[in-house]
Amino acid sequence: MHYSKNYFLNFKFVSPLALFFSAQICFTPLVAAQTTEQTADIDFIKKIYEQSLSDGRCYPWLTSLTKGVGNRLSGSTGAEKAVTWSKTTLDTLGLDSVWLQPVMVPHWERGNPEKVVVIKSKQFGTFDLHALALGGSIATPKKGIQGEVVEIKSWEQLKNMGESGIKGKIVFLNRPMDATRIRAFEAYGGAVDQRVVGASRAAQYGAVGVLVRSMGLRLDDYPHTGAMRYDSAFPKIPAVAISTNDAEKLSKLLKEEGSAKVSMRLNCRELPDVLSYNVIGEIRGSEKPTNVILVGGHLDSWDVGEGAHDDGAGCVQSMDVIRHLKRMGYRPRHTIRCVLFMNEENGLRGGRQYAAEAKRKGEFHLCSIETDAGGFTPRGFSFDGDEAVFGKFYEKIVKLQPLLEPYNLKFSKGGSGADIGPLKSEKGLLSGFQPDSQRYFDYHHTAADVLEVVNKRELELGAASLTALIYLLDKYGL
Amino acid sequence: MHYSKNYFLNFKFVSPLALFFSAQICFTPLVAAQTTEQTADIDFIKKIYEQSLSDGRCYPWLTSLTKGVGNRLSGSTGAEKAVTWSKTTLDTLGLDSVWLQPVMVPHWERGNPEKVVVIKSKQFGTFDLHALALGGSIATPKKGIQGEVVEIKSWEQLKNMGESGIKGKIVFLNRPMDATRIRAFEAYGGAVDQRVVGASRAAQYGAVGVLVRSMGLRLDDYPHTGAMRYDSAFPKIPAVAISTNDAEKLSKLLKEEGSAKVSMRLNCRELPDVLSYNVIGEIRGSEKPTNVILVGGHLDSWDVGEGAHDDGAGCVQSMDVIRHLKRMGYRPRHTIRCVLFMNEENGLRGGRQYAAEAKRKGEFHLCSIETDAGGFTPRGFSFDGDEAVFGKFYEKIVKLQPLLEPYNLKFSKGGSGADIGPLKSEKGLLSGFQPDSQRYFDYHHTAADVLEVVNKRELELGAASLTALIYLLDKYGL
Repeated sequence: MHYSKNYFLNFKFVSPLALFFSAQICFTPLVAAQTTEQTADIDFIKKIYEQSLSDGRCYPWLTSLTKGVGNRLSGSTGAEKAVTWSKTTLDTLGLDSVWLQPVMVPHWERGNPEKVVVIKSKQFGTFDLHALALGGSIATPKKGIQGEVVEIKSWEQLKNMGESGIKGKIVFLNRPMDATRIRAFEAYGGAVDQRVVGASRAAQYGAVGVLVRSMGLRLDDYPHTGAMRYDSAFPKIPAVAISTNDAEKLSKLLKEEGSAKVSMRLNCRELPDVLSYNVIGEIRGSEKPTNVILVGGHLDSWDVGEGAHDDGAGCVQSMDVIRHLKRMGYRPRHTIRCVLFMNEENGLRGGRQYAAEAKRKGEFHLCSIETDAGGFTPRGFSFDGDEAVFGKFYEKIVKLQPLLEPYNLKFSKGGSGADIGPLKSEKGLLSGFQPDSQRYFDYHHTAADVLEVVNKRELELGAASLTALIYLLDKYGL
Repeated sequence: MHYSKNYFLNFKFVSPLALFFSAQICFTPLVAAQTTEQTADIDFIKKIYEQSLSDGRCYPWLTSLTKGVGNRLSGSTGAEKAVTWSKTTLDTLGLDSVWLQPVMVPHWERGNPEKVVVIKSKQFGTFDLHALALGGSIATPKKGIQGEVVEIKSWEQLKNMGESGIKGKIVFLNRPMDATRIRAFEAYGGAVDQRVVGASRAAQYGAVGVLVRSMGLRLDDYPHTGAMRYDSAFPKIPAVAISTNDAEKLSKLLKEEGSAKVSMRLNCRELPDVLSYNVIGEIRGSEKPTNVILVGGHLDSWDVGEGAHDDGAGCVQSMDVIRHLKRMGYRPRHTIRCVLFMNEENGLRGGRQYAAEAKRKGEFHLCSIETDAGGFTPRGFSFDGDEAVFGKFYEKIVKLQPLLEPYNLKFSKGGSGADIGPLKSEKGLLSGFQPDSQRYFDYHHTAADVLEVVNKRELELGAASLTALIYLLDKYGL
């Protein structure tokens, strides 16, 4: 796209483009005549966005977190460094308090890189698959395991094959994410059961290991790790994700050669729990200090890549929200609290500990907002809550939506976030920040989730959107 | 983000996630009770999106256009290949007609790579700037030109310096795009005058050359080329874009050292006009064949990178629109026409030729839609038209918006596209496809505009959005 010569010739030496584009902004008029209050809100929200886009810290912070600290699985030295990094950073913001909230977290380690090999195929001989052990998987014996591969597309198919078809085999769970879903999270939701419960379901029929097609919509060479769990009723067997390209290749090979043999060696181990921390900073409310508006993400990540979108983005946005309000001299009525949760990925210990402490202290969380869906262009917020109160809250909150519509934000009912889930029973409002979802699963839980795939402006717009919502929540209550 | 162990434990061995996520989709109910017609529209639009996301051709086509043809400035062999490529591709779709529409286009060439050097600075010695001659610039003499650099932030400042401050100097236009604008196109609109008219404005006061800060919001090393034009009242002087990083560096150096000297050598030339083509394919309308609904992008690109977002994306989307309708067995009432315009970037000859031919043939363009803002996630459509008819059209079209809201599309009033601009006087509706704009100017007119920065799903969602709008326009008319 350019602007044609023609166009300029008509306006010679003035700057017509500013006019041209200003005609394209469509700030929805709220009402025929704005009240003073509405004008104040419109102006304040505009300032939030301007500050975020011109003087945000979230991107340099993310640079420091991803390149300086790196990935940070619960229990790792990376996680320990991330706690120090974020505490130190929050300490510079002049907040009313910054503190560490202790929590014991699981400590699973990948150990030496996994090796998954297709043995003596007719077409390709012996070759490696791009693989990552699933988080929580047991190791194989040191020499690895070997087995015939059985490809499974549905639980029904697994059940029908039964013990006679599965025993001693390596089950290959290869039901792709459904690309026709508009929201990538729906596609994820329809496939991720294979990763989470696949090992035990296969073990139920005597499988010795599972290969899981990576949870991604793109065909590429990145395996996606992520949490799995064992059902105590069945033997634990090793579980590994393979890249979507390799899943396609293995499936084709099975079709063309009739069989395939795989060997896998995983070196994971579960170590004793480790003391770690949620990192918290707050501005105390001037009117209702025990009523909290929370914004948070999770500080832990998987042990590959840099945890840039998941959830470095959410952490630095949450930190920037509280910095923006502080820098704008905003004096909140309620306590505004930024919480960086530990252990979202493989235990949710941080979220549970936080909720337990909040209950113990008698705090009421008016609204808790989680940003854990990547640092992409904002689309809106979903809202959730205990059904005793949710209807009334949503009715009120939805009236504020027009103030955020000029920024392309829509409100909807729906899930919020894992870390804030344990607060649901306390009967406050929960909200999930909803950025555009299309690229999220290109990076999620992979070595590709690095700073370079985060766009600075998209990240900053997210921080501004969160700040704007919190401003409105604080001002108007629920 | 993951889904917590806890979550799964509650549902053991069923697939709760599908339920969880389905609760998050919020298809806006159109009316309390849908009519049969509305149900048919909802279903058809859903099928369009499903087909685009599971069986789209736009991404493989874009791969072929970017990697097989490459960049394709008007008059180049790349442009010639692109014409053949798109004609051949459209020929495979079983359309009612595919043809080439001849048009004479300008033929500007960059020649050997430009060289722009800061000479003997105190801090860095002599060093190269990342530079690209602006499209349409004259060459320097073979040995280059040299001059003191004068940094200019506003036209006011240039005027105030006048001949005494400017004569014999190289003017450095360094007013950045305004990062606080939410829509990146507004930021572009507020700065691009420097690129388009900067050379003549500086020449008016006797400057011997201009350096223009690249039109990008990101600080990086990519210079952005783009069209400029000379005002015949003033001498032509050479004009070159430098990267945003280099603009910052040069500005800092001027501040710290008080002066800077630059030499520049540009090897551009304007050759005689060349015969080229708009490439057109159509499905003839069953009821009103001379009433046309047009969807198009431009086939030419700048001569760096691969023209992936600008505007390979728009071309392959337009081609896929017509393919989708054909494959779905849709029989349009009006003629649906895909037009790949030649020479949008530096002349608009294709757009003008097309409009002239349409007039000659007595065709009425009911609606013309241009997709030339990148292959990013769809946000909506802007609409424009001659003021004699626009109000009435917009009132009608906006009633269709609810059918596209589930796909996050919003309608607004605003500019459409350069190529379709010449059709405006014919009193049909014009529309511009509006994808998310945040990343566009990271790539626009640079070597970074390559296939790898286009996301397949985002591109496919765009093709689906265009198809859905055209379906509704064809069905309901205006």
